[in-house]
Amino acid sequence: MKIVVLKFGGTSVGSIDKIKNVANIIHYYLKKKYKVIVVSSAMSGVTNDLVNKSRKISNNFCDSEYDILVSSGEQVACSLIAGRLLHKGLKSRTWLGWQIPIITHGPHKQSRIIQINKKKIMDYLKEGGIPIITGFQGVNKDSRVTTLGRGGSDASAIMLAKFFNAEKCVIYTDVQGVYTTDPNKLSNAKKIKEISYEEMLEMASLGAKVMQPISIQDARLNKVDIEVKSSFVRKTGTLITKRANIINNKIITGISSTQNDSKVSLIGVKDKPGVAASIFRPLSKNLINVDMVVQNISPNGRETDLTFTIKSDDLNKTKKIIKENKSINFRKLIFKKGVSKISIIGVGMITTPGVTFRMFQALAENRINIQVISTSEIKISVLIDKRNVKKALTALHKEFKLDY
Amino acid sequence: MKIVVLKFGGTSVGSIDKIKNVANIIHYYLKKKYKVIVVSSAMSGVTNDLVNKSRKISNNFCDSEYDILVSSGEQVACSLIAGRLLHKGLKSRTWLGWQIPIITHGPHKQSRIIQINKKKIMDYLKEGGIPIITGFQGVNKDSRVTTLGRGGSDASAIMLAKFFNAEKCVIYTDVQGVYTTDPNKLSNAKKIKEISYEEMLEMASLGAKVMQPISIQDARLNKVDIEVKSSFVRKTGTLITKRANIINNKIITGISSTQNDSKVSLIGVKDKPGVAASIFRPLSKNLINVDMVVQNISPNGRETDLTFTIKSDDLNKTKKIIKENKSINFRKLIFKKGVSKISIIGVGMITTPGVTFRMFQALAENRINIQVISTSEIKISVLIDKRNVKKALTALHKEFKLDY
Repeated sequence: MKIVVLKFGGTSVGSIDKIKNVANIIHYYLKKKYKVIVVSSAMSGVTNDLVNKSRKISNNFCDSEYDILVSSGEQVACSLIAGRLLHKGLKSRTWLGWQIPIITHGPHKQSRIIQINKKKIMDYLKEGGIPIITGFQGVNKDSRVTTLGRGGSDASAIMLAKFFNAEKCVIYTDVQGVYTTDPNKLSNAKKIKEISYEEMLEMASLGAKVMQPISIQDARLNKVDIEVKSSFVRKTGTLITKRANIINNKIITGISSTQNDSKVSLIGVKDKPGVAASIFRPLSKNLINVDMVVQNISPNGRETDLTFTIKSDDLNKTKKIIKENKSINFRKLIFKKGVSKISIIGVGMITTPGVTFRMFQALAENRINIQVISTSEIKISVLIDKRNVKKALTALHKEFKLDY
Repeated sequence: MKIVVLKFGGTSVGSIDKIKNVANIIHYYLKKKYKVIVVSSAMSGVTNDLVNKSRKISNNFCDSEYDILVSSGEQVACSLIAGRLLHKGLKSRTWLGWQIPIITHGPHKQSRIIQINKKKIMDYLKEGGIPIITGFQGVNKDSRVTTLGRGGSDASAIMLAKFFNAEKCVIYTDVQGVYTTDPNKLSNAKKIKEISYEEMLEMASLGAKVMQPISIQDARLNKVDIEVKSSFVRKTGTLITKRANIINNKIITGISSTQNDSKVSLIGVKDKPGVAASIFRPLSKNLINVDMVVQNISPNGRETDLTFTIKSDDLNKTKKIIKENKSINFRKLIFKKGVSKISIIGVGMITTPGVTFRMFQALAENRINIQVISTSEIKISVLIDKRNVKKALTALHKEFKLDY
């Protein structure tokens, strides 16, 4: 049995016309002799509206009731899709999480799927039915409705693809795929045909718009190939798969950039155990997201310089915390707004020497100063002045032959 | 265990503030040492919006998917009520139909509750919990979500009151109760303290605004006392109960009137079996609702006069059907727009002679001509010119001592 899981995001089912379009997409796969399992999110805007209602009821709305509340959105979208397929003379019905059941574990609002009972859906597929399954939700051992957290419909689709051994899992969304870099920043950006889970994870700043990192991780762990594509344009999307499946002679797969960061440098910090923790603990407590962290080797063995980046929105809060916290010792504090992190990402760099050099040279040739450097196995990130972002993207996109 | 079932209609949960108010009402019963079972409708407007969506998807939207679609509305309202009670430090949760379960029988969109599993809810009540149960829905033997049809939340409340042997079932709505006559037509109208199921059924034209006749019938068959009251005003409402429970020295309980009817008279119809059917069959087929039907005794044994009333909106359609249908034989056809039906209703008339005479005399004294008369065990209806409605209501309201 050739099974495909099709997942439609909120914008793909955002109106009656779009739902009719979704029914046509499903029909297309049927004609190609696929058995189709559909997963749908709530119509765009609905979940936010429900969440706002809950906030007006209580500033501390109960998690289990939150799950009952927001899970209603997918129920509506699914019934409209099934209703449309039936209108077209096809056999279809909505399957709610508890009807299958899709068993979850863990706390409300952030449960995880641990088991999917295949029997009923498999029988239904054999009868020629098209199951429309509510994404983002399941039911726990106590028969309580649970949700999987934001982006949870992707997780539903991935787990269904795994349990039903689907040929692929297609995530329909409002973008055409994953790009070599943000097309809004560089018109030369190209759609990537194939990308590995690891690269996709590293490209989070781009990828977050397409899929939540946790869903990519789900797909990686469960070895589910994902095609990300648009439900509005009939074009091939981007396949997210494991490294070994990728035929790609490019060293670099994509380039990501951040928009509006600030750099914080603490000069002359005592170089002893626990110092970094004493700095980052109060920031973490205040929900300040620290990104790049670089610590230089202490030249005299007693003092060191520590640099990290944060979102510029958090700058004032960060200043206050560092200045008020007496346990943090340093000689000098430097803040700098208006920096951007540029990262080149690609599994190809593991086996290709000189990638770092080529990156630095390309930037140098364009007179772009590198402020901080940080590297991982498949990513090199540099911090530059945000005014140079476009110049840097253009140079690197060309250097690593992503332009064509 | 002193149990009360509180049912809140769409307008009672129509906004965040109204839901907060509902939580206060529930709290009030708890303070009076009641164990409270809550049933809620969807927030006002929600169900209509969902139904409109289904119509845009298909002009023949599948019934089982319709049930999935519209049942989402109660789910939202219930979670918000439970969320608010939890916010107030009370123990509460939403119970969806399938979680209890509430078992239904019959076709989708018009299922009937046949069984309610008491165990889980009873345990929950004993633990001090306040169950918030989705009205209007249940689950059938095949684990499919079903709905009970319009007004179905009342049916849910009544069946819960029956199965849990509740002291009473309170239906919260946007009117303060049932009135002796429509307060919009007669400012002298008084709220009725107690009314029998049968009277309530006969007062359909008034009662429909308060409760669907089918729900009143449910309450009657299951011997459930119902109090209808407003969720916005803290006043006693109207108790709907069985005749024997009513302490009432009034002969007439209420007076109803219709707004805009038309009278159709067929003069000189052949007086033989099947004639009435040949007239009403085509009307019924065209969904024309025929109300009063009066057939005079044929003076010569061969011909008779037949009169009936319809809504004035249906007049043109009715004319066309009668004129075009060759199987209907008559000598003369008379149509008259602008008539109203005035009915006096009361179980007291069974044991009190002379009620008909008093009604006719009161109208005659006010020079109101009676065009047609029809009677049942607890109701007398007359057809009058619609210009005389207010005069008639005033006269009858006074005659039967309903003014105080």
